[in-house]
Amino acid sequence: MVTTTLQRALPTSGVSLPVQVVAPTLSDIIERAALADDLALVERTMVERTASRSRPIAAAGAYTVSAGGKRLRAALVLLAARLGSYDLERAARPAVAIELLHAASLVHDDLVDHTLRRRGRVTVHARWDRHVALMVGDYFFALAANELAAEPDPRIIRFYADAAQTVVEGELRPVTQLEPMSVALEQYFYKTGAKTAALFEAACKAGIAVGGGTAEQVEALERFGYNLGVAFQIIDDILDFTSNETALGKPAGNDLREGTLTLPLIYAVAQSDAPLLREVARTARPNPTQVPQLIEAVIAAGGISRALDEARQIVQQAQSALAHFPPTGALQALYDICDFVLQRQV
Amino acid sequence: MVTTTLQRALPTSGVSLPVQVVAPTLSDIIERAALADDLALVERTMVERTASRSRPIAAAGAYTVSAGGKRLRAALVLLAARLGSYDLERAARPAVAIELLHAASLVHDDLVDHTLRRRGRVTVHARWDRHVALMVGDYFFALAANELAAEPDPRIIRFYADAAQTVVEGELRPVTQLEPMSVALEQYFYKTGAKTAALFEAACKAGIAVGGGTAEQVEALERFGYNLGVAFQIIDDILDFTSNETALGKPAGNDLREGTLTLPLIYAVAQSDAPLLREVARTARPNPTQVPQLIEAVIAAGGISRALDEARQIVQQAQSALAHFPPTGALQALYDICDFVLQRQV
Repeated sequence: MVTTTLQRALPTSGVSLPVQVVAPTLSDIIERAALADDLALVERTMVERTASRSRPIAAAGAYTVSAGGKRLRAALVLLAARLGSYDLERAARPAVAIELLHAASLVHDDLVDHTLRRRGRVTVHARWDRHVALMVGDYFFALAANELAAEPDPRIIRFYADAAQTVVEGELRPVTQLEPMSVALEQYFYKTGAKTAALFEAACKAGIAVGGGTAEQVEALERFGYNLGVAFQIIDDILDFTSNETALGKPAGNDLREGTLTLPLIYAVAQSDAPLLREVARTARPNPTQVPQLIEAVIAAGGISRALDEARQIVQQAQSALAHFPPTGALQALYDICDFVLQRQV
Repeated sequence: MVTTTLQRALPTSGVSLPVQVVAPTLSDIIERAALADDLALVERTMVERTASRSRPIAAAGAYTVSAGGKRLRAALVLLAARLGSYDLERAARPAVAIELLHAASLVHDDLVDHTLRRRGRVTVHARWDRHVALMVGDYFFALAANELAAEPDPRIIRFYADAAQTVVEGELRPVTQLEPMSVALEQYFYKTGAKTAALFEAACKAGIAVGGGTAEQVEALERFGYNLGVAFQIIDDILDFTSNETALGKPAGNDLREGTLTLPLIYAVAQSDAPLLREVARTARPNPTQVPQLIEAVIAAGGISRALDEARQIVQQAQSALAHFPPTGALQALYDICDFVLQRQV
């Protein structure tokens, strides 16, 4: 169990905390939903698939898979499939494929962004070279396509291919201005919807589709996945202001240093006259030497709390999309994942 | 009609050339097989698919598609499909997909190899930037997967995904030595089989498979496509010694300048004591300042003619794989493509 920041400040020994303020970890959720064995199969399959006749591909591929990550997208596929009629063998394929796609896009992102560390580990292009990183990404795309070859429902590969196209489109459309707020928000939500939410959406749709869901159910999972993905990214962007290197596996303030304009900054600029925020509003280029001061100014201006409010509202939209499903352990796990996404510290 | 190098030296006006020494162009073959309309559909589909909400992706994608190329792989899909029962709508999808895959791998190759020109045009990363080139390649991979989503035979996407994996593996296994010849040849044929022949093989197998071919027929087309692809690459490597920048769209001697060790050089080294060749045999690193002299030495040592002999024998193996198909216009076109591949000047 990870407690919220508020809870952390309290002495916990001997104190019985109210359940609703304790954020579930993903492990808790997976355990309660009895999903661990199924996710272990996904993990084993990823390791198997990454074997290659090419030694650098096999090595860098194994390295990438072993870096882990939360496997949240795979869990979403499996849980969404459980909302319908669940066949693990069939549901595992899009679960493996979405994690391979996600891994491919991270490796390529790190390559073009010159990112040196992710999840506390050296990135592929930094540990091997640019050529290997490019090729591992391409290889993982091919593995993902191969994984879906045996899937009889042609919608699944379409969901994933469309999502991969959308991720690419989002990758090339950064937020370029902080004012007017309406334009900044439009750019931010376009990019967030494309770069992050598209894969969440595809995972949830693929899950319910292999579970035999109706068109209405697929649409409900689309809304759930999309909104959950947007909220996930907002929290990610908040954590870049509030967390630290140990928790993130990369330095905090990274977005500001790289000139990436995110929601807390957009809101802070909209509701503050602090000179530092006025300046960044004008230039739309955070000064890398003033990152600690900018973080303080964004927090002081209420940028974080307004972004968190936004994330909460978006998660409520995600949850409302699930209203028509019967109450099962899988449904509860999807609700719990909403709480996890909002309250996660890493 | 393009005549062979030998023919070019002869006065041609008023001379009636024997048919067998005149190489058919790909346009001739396509016209005789009445394939032009079908390939035009493939081309239109590629243009349509490349449209994107992202302006740089749409622009760089259209630029890549308009660079054209021979569409030889698409022609192979369609002709192989015609060996069975031909349904253009169904066969067009793997034809489009193989060209998208091929284009993606070229864009990514040019990116990691820092190639500035291809087919006489500035490459994508040179005209836009590295980020756009990476993303256009990824986008084309996703488009190819999407194109195959509606294909009911799961083998097709497997053929293509396997080929994409093989291309990546070949990309990372260069020829590293020229002696002993056996090792150099093993490395050369592994790389050539992976980087070039895998897509030819996949194209031919996909074609006969959507044409409803038997397992034996798929295997025959596998051998045909693989061998044709190896021969195609050998001729490519020969042209880098014998052609010129106008014909190639890139400077001749490019491979030597970049340290890429190909079949003409391997054979030249094996059958000559010329000091320049001895030196490169020892270092396995051609001296970029001596490219013109190296080209002359390779030609003088008979490296070109032995590589050409090898290509001819491999093409014979390709042709023999077609022995059991009934004589049709499509079969004739596949035989003609063998001649085209051997005698092409660009």
